Amino acid sequence: MQRDYVTRAIRLALEEDIGTGDVTSAVTVPAGARASGHFLAKSPGVVSGLDVAAATFREVDPRVAFIALVRDGDRVVPGDLIARVAGEARSLLAAERVALNFLQRLSGVATATARYAEAVTGTGARVIDTRKTTPGMRLMEKAAVRHGGGHNHRFGLSDGILIKDNHLAAIGGPDRVARAVAAARAGAPHTLRVEVEVTSLDELEQALAAGADVVLLDNMAVDQMAEAVRRTRGRAILEASGGITLETIRRIAETGVDLISVGALTHSAPSLDISLELTLETGDATGE
Amino acid sequence: MQRDYVTRAIRLALEEDIGTGDVTSAVTVPAGARASGHFLAKSPGVVSGLDVAAATFREVDPRVAFIALVRDGDRVVPGDLIARVAGEARSLLAAERVALNFLQRLSGVATATARYAEAVTGTGARVIDTRKTTPGMRLMEKAAVRHGGGHNHRFGLSDGILIKDNHLAAIGGPDRVARAVAAARAGAPHTLRVEVEVTSLDELEQALAAGADVVLLDNMAVDQMAEAVRRTRGRAILEASGGITLETIRRIAETGVDLISVGALTHSAPSLDISLELTLETGDATGE
Amino acid sequence: MQRDYVTRAIRLALEEDIGTGDVTSAVTVPAGARASGHFLAKSPGVVSGLDVAAATFREVDPRVAFIALVRDGDRVVPGDLIARVAGEARSLLAAERVALNFLQRLSGVATATARYAEAVTGTGARVIDTRKTTPGMRLMEKAAVRHGGGHNHRFGLSDGILIKDNHLAAIGGPDRVARAVAAARAGAPHTLRVEVEVTSLDELEQALAAGADVVLLDNMAVDQMAEAVRRTRGRAILEASGGITLETIRRIAETGVDLISVGALTHSAPSLDISLELTLETGDATGE
Amino acid sequence: MQRDYVTRAIRLALEEDIGTGDVTSAVTVPAGARASGHFLAKSPGVVSGLDVAAATFREVDPRVAFIALVRDGDRVVPGDLIARVAGEARSLLAAERVALNFLQRLSGVATATARYAEAVTGTGARVIDTRKTTPGMRLMEKAAVRHGGGHNHRFGLSDGILIKDNHLAAIGGPDRVARAVAAARAGAPHTLRVEVEVTSLDELEQALAAGADVVLLDNMAVDQMAEAVRRTRGRAILEASGGITLETIRRIAETGVDLISVGALTHSAPSLDISLELTLETGDATGE
Amino acid sequence: MQRDYVTRAIRLALEEDIGTGDVTSAVTVPAGARASGHFLAKSPGVVSGLDVAAATFREVDPRVAFIALVRDGDRVVPGDLIARVAGEARSLLAAERVALNFLQRLSGVATATARYAEAVTGTGARVIDTRKTTPGMRLMEKAAVRHGGGHNHRFGLSDGILIKDNHLAAIGGPDRVARAVAAARAGAPHTLRVEVEVTSLDELEQALAAGADVVLLDNMAVDQMAEAVRRTRGRAILEASGGITLETIRRIAETGVDLISVGALTHSAPSLDISLELTLETGDATGE
Amino acid sequence: MQRDYVTRAIRLALEEDIGTGDVTSAVTVPAGARASGHFLAKSPGVVSGLDVAAATFREVDPRVAFIALVRDGDRVVPGDLIARVAGEARSLLAAERVALNFLQRLSGVATATARYAEAVTGTGARVIDTRKTTPGMRLMEKAAVRHGGGHNHRFGLSDGILIKDNHLAAIGGPDRVARAVAAARAGAPHTLRVEVEVTSLDELEQALAAGADVVLLDNMAVDQMAEAVRRTRGRAILEASGGITLETIRRIAETGVDLISVGALTHSAPSLDISLELTLETGDATGE
Repeated sequence: MQRDYVTRAIRLALEEDIGTGDVTSAVTVPAGARASGHFLAKSPGVVSGLDVAAATFREVDPRVAFIALVRDGDRVVPGDLIARVAGEARSLLAAERVALNFLQRLSGVATATARYAEAVTGTGARVIDTRKTTPGMRLMEKAAVRHGGGHNHRFGLSDGILIKDNHLAAIGGPDRVARAVAAARAGAPHTLRVEVEVTSLDELEQALAAGADVVLLDNMAVDQMAEAVRRTRGRAILEASGGITLETIRRIAETGVDLISVGALTHSAPSLDISLELTLETGDATGE
Repeated sequence: MQRDYVTRAIRLALEEDIGTGDVTSAVTVPAGARASGHFLAKSPGVVSGLDVAAATFREVDPRVAFIALVRDGDRVVPGDLIARVAGEARSLLAAERVALNFLQRLSGVATATARYAEAVTGTGARVIDTRKTTPGMRLMEKAAVRHGGGHNHRFGLSDGILIKDNHLAAIGGPDRVARAVAAARAGAPHTLRVEVEVTSLDELEQALAAGADVVLLDNMAVDQMAEAVRRTRGRAILEASGGITLETIRRIAETGVDLISVGALTHSAPSLDISLELTLETGDATGE
Repeated sequence: MQRDYVTRAIRLALEEDIGTGDVTSAVTVPAGARASGHFLAKSPGVVSGLDVAAATFREVDPRVAFIALVRDGDRVVPGDLIARVAGEARSLLAAERVALNFLQRLSGVATATARYAEAVTGTGARVIDTRKTTPGMRLMEKAAVRHGGGHNHRFGLSDGILIKDNHLAAIGGPDRVARAVAAARAGAPHTLRVEVEVTSLDELEQALAAGADVVLLDNMAVDQMAEAVRRTRGRAILEASGGITLETIRRIAETGVDLISVGALTHSAPSLDISLELTLETGDATGE
Repeated sequence: MQRDYVTRAIRLALEEDIGTGDVTSAVTVPAGARASGHFLAKSPGVVSGLDVAAATFREVDPRVAFIALVRDGDRVVPGDLIARVAGEARSLLAAERVALNFLQRLSGVATATARYAEAVTGTGARVIDTRKTTPGMRLMEKAAVRHGGGHNHRFGLSDGILIKDNHLAAIGGPDRVARAVAAARAGAPHTLRVEVEVTSLDELEQALAAGADVVLLDNMAVDQMAEAVRRTRGRAILEASGGITLETIRRIAETGVDLISVGALTHSAPSLDISLELTLETGDATGE
Repeated sequence: MQRDYVTRAIRLALEEDIGTGDVTSAVTVPAGARASGHFLAKSPGVVSGLDVAAATFREVDPRVAFIALVRDGDRVVPGDLIARVAGEARSLLAAERVALNFLQRLSGVATATARYAEAVTGTGARVIDTRKTTPGMRLMEKAAVRHGGGHNHRFGLSDGILIKDNHLAAIGGPDRVARAVAAARAGAPHTLRVEVEVTSLDELEQALAAGADVVLLDNMAVDQMAEAVRRTRGRAILEASGGITLETIRRIAETGVDLISVGALTHSAPSLDISLELTLETGDATGE
Repeated sequence: MQRDYVTRAIRLALEEDIGTGDVTSAVTVPAGARASGHFLAKSPGVVSGLDVAAATFREVDPRVAFIALVRDGDRVVPGDLIARVAGEARSLLAAERVALNFLQRLSGVATATARYAEAVTGTGARVIDTRKTTPGMRLMEKAAVRHGGGHNHRFGLSDGILIKDNHLAAIGGPDRVARAVAAARAGAPHTLRVEVEVTSLDELEQALAAGADVVLLDNMAVDQMAEAVRRTRGRAILEASGGITLETIRRIAETGVDLISVGALTHSAPSLDISLELTLETGDATGE
């Protein structure tokens, strides 16, 4: 479940970071001192992970106030305020780094996705993600992809059928695509579409003839993809995949493929630069 | 503990990916069919995460053989074989993506670190990491930094004292650096050195006078850092920090600082391109 | 993941049953005494859960030998031996009840499924399960359904789309079926088929026109289902559902529907009667 | 602890069912739309599991209101309202199936128990349960037995001594009952009574002479049990066990035995038929 | 379950101690260097916890050899060897402190128990423990009590009935003892004996008349206990409790009470002095 | 993290104690009956663990009120009230023993520490703890040491460098102290001081010359320690360790060492005698 999943991820991250306690704050910041601050964008991008950041502070100290000033999916430019926090200074300092680590990474994914999604604007193609996600953060990264304007491929091995090169190798023979698709149609639950990876137009024909619902065109040249679209005539959904970059994605989209999957959305997106600036709230410590 | 930590991270990642089971393999790959394959470098870089990848296969199926052909920390060029795997085809297919996700990300961190470390070769400076790591992967990423030739800063809030701007704000006053260092020396366990962040040469003087063991020079200009080194005269360890890039790191190292911390090693390193190519082992299925 | 899932279920069950230890065995059975025995069918049925039973003994004591004499999915009649166990008497006694609780319940599900599956033999219809499973045992019960000759519907909310009456209520309006299907086609991942529940032939027409991949015919009369099959003309997969019993399933299957889902397979199947009879292995205790 | 135990069981069940998220609701039900509904009895029976059902909704979404309209242990007839729920439509849809799976199964156990308990009304005998419970649900099923008017035997191996046939086999010899009882009296904690299973009147005499506190009469004929009662003369508590049905229980109770244990209460009780009918609350979504 | 319980306790303790890794060994002990050593008694006492110590080393490194040279329950004098270990030096150093912490504390409990048990030798009284155990170590400490020659009272609130002063206060009235015992006999599972705490001979008479199985004599003077024994005439088991010391226990035992419970066995036993002396095995590191 | 750590420890302890439920209260104390009471000191000492005790009651029942009447670190004499509790009687009875087990043990540690700390009053020496703590309670015991006026040594193997005899054995040679210190200075993170154990003045000289930050004087005679202080001349922090008792600590402190570590603070402190006396609140049960 989503809530449990996020909670567990946050606890792991806090455990790693806090260990047996924040020694520095314990010896330099008075117990009860209060502070407040804001998260500030330092690069342009798309925000994702506000809920995770908020939950990180709550996990450390339920009395911390976290007020989002933008929504997941919103664009920010340098200088924009993203959220405010207020509470006991020691709590803010203990949660700060982990909250930023989540927020920066997820906003990085959303920002990268937005660049790819913009590049295909006006074509019918959707930018989709892959399973090349950060271990332990898949659901959060999949949400970040949506915040960036992308769509999700399957979440894992149990909610989608995708027959890849390695499965085809396990079947073997010149008609392996046809036989694999047939096997999947016979054996799989009726709730799942059957997708198969092909590397040539011949294999595409096999896949279509065997009744594939979706065909992944693996590392095809652009004109080959265009031909694939023509031959398919709407009989299956087509997904372009393999080494797609911001430079190439527009031309691929214009071939008429339905989906373009980009591993780099999650495996190589740099973090978005966001900082947290705290101010001590003077006079409050005594009132505690 | 290391072993538990890695096991838990792997289980989380497999749980995310495998869910209720690998439907595709179940319907296309015969039970008992065996396969083997190799991990292949597709970009130049430094490898890290071989143990994690091996443990991922073992977690899915203890009978899978994983043989590393290089060691963590070794350099590879495109075409180099990194490891071999062999076992039941369904097991290999179930573990493949998660093993690659770990291996590619950690190798990405090691590769980025190696670039920074090379850039300071011959100076006395060490490249060190920060707490800007992927949530849930800190220990693995810290190891990857070492594999890339870097060194580690503290692992978390409990194994090091680092008085940062936000702590200083909580103390306040023109002598806040001096007072913070004094408080830390009085209150902290004797096992930890006292490090403080300064933004000016005045603050550096305060820190030295108060007996700081380590001083972090935050976002200083290069000539200011050089001056800081002169004034310190070995009385404290000096760490340069803030927006350091491959372009600037050499000049910073040449100022004579001891340590240069680089957040990008872990927060923005792209994954190293590695693939796994499997081959069905014909004839073996019957022998099972 | 399957292995983890089963292990966790077994540990929970043993924890419940063993608590702080088996007092009776501790005071009446000598440490080191060895025993062996066999699992014996006492009613006719189909076996499921042998792996779970074996893993239960292993969890209590890895040195216990458990040898299955039949396979999951095999039919047994009263008197048939199902498996043998041998090991330290105290270990066998500690694991016995939990192993039987799993084996009897799962075999009960397989047995019930087999009865339904037999009833539709020769028609093209498949018997499928529902989400009305025992909390904490879904994957095991879904396997038991397969062992009994049935097929699985989706495993949970994330690996299938099924728009039910309550979703339709949330959309509202006379064209709610059409709009729901359209929304699902637009918003859902491309890996999942779109299934919708209908209660009338009019709604069926809406569903087909909107492009539903699968239509669930809810509580329809048999002749209404037959008419639904005629009108559909293979444009969608049809699932019959609602109050289906062993008495009615054959006639329903003969209407030509593709799938018949039966909640009772998992929510009301009585346990299969299986016993474990142990014998002390005399003379062995001293050899320990 | 009870609270933890139930929470853990609910989380496991939700994890199984929700997986990475409820796709259908995500694409067909607007975020923020609100709904309400009621749990409705569709068969006559005794309710159990209201707290578990309530906690299931709370676990998914703490803002859902769940108002029980009857109490655990109350009888219902078809058409009776059991509880109301109200909250965000997506939350209700996500929790619905798991809540029903708990409520229907536990009410099934309570209903079966009530039938047995009624059958012995007016005799001094109590209907008690066994350890033949659903793995992972023992404490909940034991409570359901109480709600149905039954009583509990031991919860597991650590809170009761019950020397069974397999323990006696491990002792061996014609005086094995006497020796087992003596061993238990000498070795067991003083807090536990000593119960032993016997299959003949001779063994009963041995048990009584050795000071057994409770004697389980295993699969005895009714007149043999009557004789056992006469011979015991109140020196021990007598429990009848083995293949007891609704048809035979009254006669057994009339022999004067104190306890009658029935495995079918938990291992073979069909679920009670209960449905949840939801209605969209129009106009509320905007107010969110 | 016992095995799980111990494993979990060991993991918690190692997690606390090892944190992100043993820095000292990492920088001073070569990887692969091997060592061996022995556990040495430095005070006289009774050993307990050998299995826990062994499992601690195995948890850190399954290749470590741990050979017990005595058994739990054996007496040792200063200079006695208790166990040998051999393995990778870093593994031994990582596990050493936690293994000793368990072994010394549990041996401390066994040693204290042995002193009390010896003091009552030849009387019929048994020394028993209480629930005043170390949080998280109850089952291990209960075993240590047995190793020291004592017996166990109940393990927790669910495997024994003990009506204490606070329960009696909740019942109230001059006949509260009688009413509490009657309520317990009516409501409790038949597997548990009914024990009640009394502070006077009058209350003892009430308890006996109401059918208490066990009576706890709370803080009674020795001659009052003797009178309690006379009046009871074997109708109930008698437990002496409250402030019992090594100085007073013999006289209490001689009154004829059956059980004497001593909280200090577990809440105040000093650790037994045991050390681990390691020797580097020269020449082995290269062979790794 | 601190909060998680304490919660987990409390849950483990409650799980051990409550098991499947508090049978005694269930059968003798009416549901809904309310009670209140106070924790009472029965020996003189220093209190620690109030937060843990409070959290224990909250964990069992969030509606219990727990009001501390003193603070951790306060001294109490027999008869002093430490805290009040009020709530449902069954909840208080279920949490009572575990709360006391924590409070008494931690107060025992604080009390022992206070005795040692008082003994060195007026000298410059600090009393510090060791890693000889109760498995699973280290952080709580370390806090208790601070409450008693002591200071903490490292929390575990990752937040401090302490080269002990066994590490030195692994280095070997007459200059092993010097080489170990040099290795640690070269390899360890810059955040940690380097501490080394020495057994002679020669080794002390080696350590100082090699740049040790802290030197542990192991089992040295008092005059040897005094000489060590003279020779060190403030170049390193000196820690006295080994068999230190209340009788010897003052003289050791007077030698001028900085730190004195005492294992007995945590491994052998007897529990502080504290009781909880409850009173039934009459008339309240009906109002529930």
